[in-house]
Amino acid sequence: MPRRPLILSIAFMLLAAAVGTTSNAHAQDAPARITSPDGRIAFTVWSEQGAPRYAVALDNETVVRASRLGFRFAEGAPLETGLALTGTQTGSHDDTWEQPWGERRLVRDHHNELVASFRYAGNPERGFDLRIRVFDSGVGFRYEVMGDAPHAIIDEMTRFNLPEQSTAWWVPAAGWNRYEYIYEETSLSEVDRAHSPFTARLPDDGPWVAIHEAALHDYSGFYLDQQRGGILDVKLAPGPDGIAVHADANFTTPWRTIQIADAAVGLINSDIILNLNEPNVLGDVSWVEPGKYVGIWWGMHINTQTWGSGPNHGATNENTREMIEFAAENGFDGILVEGWNLGWDGDWFNRQETFSFTEAYPDFDIEALSAYARERGVRLVGHHETSGDLTNYENQMEAGFALYERLGISQVKTGYVADAGDLVRYEADGTPRYEWHYGQYAVNHHLRVLQAAAEHRISINAHEPVKDTGIRRTYPNWISREGARGQEYNAWGVPPNPPEHVPTLAFTRLLSGPMDFTPGIFDLMPRGEDAPSRVQTTLAQQLAHYVTIYSPIQMAADLPDNYLARPDAFQFIRDVPTDWETSIALEGEPGQHIVFARQERGGADWYVGAANGGAARHVGLGLDFLEDGRTYTAQLYLDHPDAHWEHNPYAMMIREMQVTSTDEIEFTLVPGGGAAIRFVAEN
Amino acid sequence: MPRRPLILSIAFMLLAAAVGTTSNAHAQDAPARITSPDGRIAFTVWSEQGAPRYAVALDNETVVRASRLGFRFAEGAPLETGLALTGTQTGSHDDTWEQPWGERRLVRDHHNELVASFRYAGNPERGFDLRIRVFDSGVGFRYEVMGDAPHAIIDEMTRFNLPEQSTAWWVPAAGWNRYEYIYEETSLSEVDRAHSPFTARLPDDGPWVAIHEAALHDYSGFYLDQQRGGILDVKLAPGPDGIAVHADANFTTPWRTIQIADAAVGLINSDIILNLNEPNVLGDVSWVEPGKYVGIWWGMHINTQTWGSGPNHGATNENTREMIEFAAENGFDGILVEGWNLGWDGDWFNRQETFSFTEAYPDFDIEALSAYARERGVRLVGHHETSGDLTNYENQMEAGFALYERLGISQVKTGYVADAGDLVRYEADGTPRYEWHYGQYAVNHHLRVLQAAAEHRISINAHEPVKDTGIRRTYPNWISREGARGQEYNAWGVPPNPPEHVPTLAFTRLLSGPMDFTPGIFDLMPRGEDAPSRVQTTLAQQLAHYVTIYSPIQMAADLPDNYLARPDAFQFIRDVPTDWETSIALEGEPGQHIVFARQERGGADWYVGAANGGAARHVGLGLDFLEDGRTYTAQLYLDHPDAHWEHNPYAMMIREMQVTSTDEIEFTLVPGGGAAIRFVAEN
Repeated sequence: MPRRPLILSIAFMLLAAAVGTTSNAHAQDAPARITSPDGRIAFTVWSEQGAPRYAVALDNETVVRASRLGFRFAEGAPLETGLALTGTQTGSHDDTWEQPWGERRLVRDHHNELVASFRYAGNPERGFDLRIRVFDSGVGFRYEVMGDAPHAIIDEMTRFNLPEQSTAWWVPAAGWNRYEYIYEETSLSEVDRAHSPFTARLPDDGPWVAIHEAALHDYSGFYLDQQRGGILDVKLAPGPDGIAVHADANFTTPWRTIQIADAAVGLINSDIILNLNEPNVLGDVSWVEPGKYVGIWWGMHINTQTWGSGPNHGATNENTREMIEFAAENGFDGILVEGWNLGWDGDWFNRQETFSFTEAYPDFDIEALSAYARERGVRLVGHHETSGDLTNYENQMEAGFALYERLGISQVKTGYVADAGDLVRYEADGTPRYEWHYGQYAVNHHLRVLQAAAEHRISINAHEPVKDTGIRRTYPNWISREGARGQEYNAWGVPPNPPEHVPTLAFTRLLSGPMDFTPGIFDLMPRGEDAPSRVQTTLAQQLAHYVTIYSPIQMAADLPDNYLARPDAFQFIRDVPTDWETSIALEGEPGQHIVFARQERGGADWYVGAANGGAARHVGLGLDFLEDGRTYTAQLYLDHPDAHWEHNPYAMMIREMQVTSTDEIEFTLVPGGGAAIRFVAEN
Repeated sequence: MPRRPLILSIAFMLLAAAVGTTSNAHAQDAPARITSPDGRIAFTVWSEQGAPRYAVALDNETVVRASRLGFRFAEGAPLETGLALTGTQTGSHDDTWEQPWGERRLVRDHHNELVASFRYAGNPERGFDLRIRVFDSGVGFRYEVMGDAPHAIIDEMTRFNLPEQSTAWWVPAAGWNRYEYIYEETSLSEVDRAHSPFTARLPDDGPWVAIHEAALHDYSGFYLDQQRGGILDVKLAPGPDGIAVHADANFTTPWRTIQIADAAVGLINSDIILNLNEPNVLGDVSWVEPGKYVGIWWGMHINTQTWGSGPNHGATNENTREMIEFAAENGFDGILVEGWNLGWDGDWFNRQETFSFTEAYPDFDIEALSAYARERGVRLVGHHETSGDLTNYENQMEAGFALYERLGISQVKTGYVADAGDLVRYEADGTPRYEWHYGQYAVNHHLRVLQAAAEHRISINAHEPVKDTGIRRTYPNWISREGARGQEYNAWGVPPNPPEHVPTLAFTRLLSGPMDFTPGIFDLMPRGEDAPSRVQTTLAQQLAHYVTIYSPIQMAADLPDNYLARPDAFQFIRDVPTDWETSIALEGEPGQHIVFARQERGGADWYVGAANGGAARHVGLGLDFLEDGRTYTAQLYLDHPDAHWEHNPYAMMIREMQVTSTDEIEFTLVPGGGAAIRFVAEN
């Protein structure tokens, strides 16, 4: 080919140089610019020879270099050239709203807004508005497209042009799995296809960046596809007809978000994703209740019980009654029972057998068990594994929810175990259509499930879900979800989750919202000391997860006997709440460690959780988050200094001390270690 | 999720164990099996619970584990389940056919054939035949689909399930480029998206495998997408409407090929790709003429000349007349002149300016220059850079070819410089549609160009083309192409082609067919000794490329002065032919080295070329390819033992000696080194 690459590089350099100052030597409309309330973050948008472009800077240093915007459609002109920046509107916004449940009760939404109008030169009625909101912790922008006929979107052209030398933390969007990979830490140049939230640190100890999306409704989720040199392009999940999104003539996309922070924890201490979602549309949601649960579940993962019928069937009347008693005696409000319903005995993964959502196995008397639970002041947690057969579930879910409502079951764990791209729906004539977990159809399916569940005052905890984009603000009955490697991988994963896993999740997956990780495994080697799968944390870190991994519903995932064998450690799980007045990520970096402080909602106590990666470290924990002048009894669950996830994971020290906000607590985090602390307000 | 992964692994193991014996404990139709003429390679095909599957073994050892087959369509039932293996037909074939030009004159096509019929249980008229041909050097199979309405193919489900621990040599199919990457050598587990030919070696010094396709017509090219554990899925390039392939009710796919060899050179010494293409449809192709050419080209790449007009314009009357004289005096028959036509002065890459294929710059008198070339017994080589604007080219190509035919120009180098996925065609109303270099539209475009060119007795040498799939057998006027990193990357590539490049090309890209690499650079550091771009070979390897890189048209790419400064080395380029009676890859492995012997067509002389990677090695070259009892004068162009691509690249020894077929020649290949040998038949 003719010598193209050098020309390209020069063009990039010119653009990169121009962005910082928002002046620009190219033939283009005047750029428009909006900054964050604190003035540090600037978003610039312009038209370059008719092509819409944007860039983002922090303190006048480029974060996102000149990047394209637009769409290609199956029919009709693409929305990427011939567009002039014809007008802008600006505004600002500052209010505080209350969450019904959450990592903090009050959320401040403080941003400046710019609406940049791109219109075709020959047709000022057609084009799109780019609505941009700039917060102190990052930016969000979305397209508001004006057309004259429905759109079949093939490609959204949104690009994030980051420095190639950045470091990135990510899971691959390639392959068969649905977000359930070990996170990779690589240079950005080694990223190929990556899911969001996608976290990066710019070169030379530069700022931290996380790319994601907010308010994913009636649209396909994206992954990021590196083109070259740090250029990440949005790629939408295609539908089975090859169309990524079927949209109306006028349509609005989800928000594309770029969080920016000086310190890694700044990514966590940001409410951008929630703020870019619409307020609660369900009205009274007092029936959505945070809490803690136990269940018949881990036994199947460590192979001592089965989902299907047979001599080791887990979901029996006897096992369930025992679990109800354990829950009632130890302050849990829920009992999850998997494998209760017909459909587990055949080749359900390949959908040779489909699930019933109303018919129980004969050894599971759902009526009697529900009644017994009510009697003991607890309740069953429902379970709906779909095997990815969306039609089968949509046909039955109303009946399933009605049954559960009648039985007093108010939370349902759903499941979508199927290879990525292999969810199925059936057309009226029975023709199967295969869908992605993050495609438009699945996105809308999850909303249909939420809405149907809400009619029955039921909350949903989806496993193998679409990624979280903050929809819990609008539908607070989406109470939790999976969407990453959870504890189950420690039962059978080869390799299991490495020590770096949770300290990485905190800065990646967990930026998007709650995760039902199912923490609290006390028998760290349930398959024996030589098995390839085991828990690669200390016991103390298992306690810490109740604070470091946010979820309004938290499981105590291990078998009751393992808790009863360690009542001292178990006490922390009994004590820890799951709904918070506020939360603060104090320190840490991806894969290294994470330290959280959270104050319980409706109470004065504080909790700290610290989860460490593979290298020992010292933490000096300043307590200035505590109320000034108040004394607290700190109950500390710390790694013994000789502890180590691999060869001495159970060595834990439990201590008590009096502290105030001017104190500092020093402790060691061993490899794979952790710390869990309760601060009981004393006066 | 429930514990799916372990179940999966067990299923794979059972299948893998079952394949070697072609018996199988699963509920399925009886498998059908066909072996190669020598009995070593076995292809097994069956239906597993209605899903078509195949596997491949060598000497009863699994090469490709049980792998799926089938299609998904935008509408209508997918062709992947509900299918029974209802019948088989077998046959065998052995003939030898003659190439008009090629790496060997006579090609033997010896294979066994199995046609396996998969039909819907309820509709024996619908389904597909899998036509399988098994050669001693591998297998090819294609689908022959019977439907009742046109098909909009979304996904072809063909899978290649290889051992994850295999080693792979590949270029990424991700990103903006079109095959022009440095090859990677990784474990198969590190492959994400890879173009074909895709080369792998099975674990434990197992057999060598190359996956590719043959006879790509009216269909999209594929790349391989790793799902997990060595499972490579075919992914077809999507069209701009989201449909990968628009096919008739009945359609036939290209052949999917799996070459298998004990030694790496066995992959090269195979004619599977050609044998799976249809015979010549052009009739008399005596006007398709192998040969050697020079040109006004390298100066643009090293920045001393320009494509566009101005003081350094390369395509001037004066420069061209000088080049015509140089060609005539040194035995070249062609003179390529790039930058001769209008369109190079603006932003052609972004198609702000489009090319004319009939209008020359004022300082290029195409009529007079063509006449002058004819007078000197040579001719110009045409040049058509399209900038990826397929419509602009299709609108003008007839006029362009007519002009060239009238002027006696019989070869045209075409160019498709545009980012991958950014070729453009325009609908009647001017709406742009973006296409992939290997998508169905581009595949058909290239055929339209070939056919239009053939009408004017013109041969095509396409740069930034679709990959080669052996169509030269059917259309012998597709005389060469690019489709990988060529010499130009040594002028401006950062990094340039590494020493491993050509020894890797031999076992990857070059399995597909001829490459216009443009070898023969004598000034190895054209931008100075400290420039990041340079040639990373010795001078001897530059000579060797005329033998190691097959192309029926070979450029002497450097500036004439550089050849005139080294007449001794230049003599080999003057001597070496470009059309061969036969070719033998003698030894080598990807990235290590490659040694070829070729006999000239229509003559008795033999030529050997050896290209080495980064590590010095000794070669003992047995000469048993020479005719028994005949004496040859061997003219050897060898690396001096002190030579090294980096610090002493010009040190070359030229020797002459008498040899016969019983002799062995020993020589050293230095890092980045090479050897070129002419064997002149003496009696």
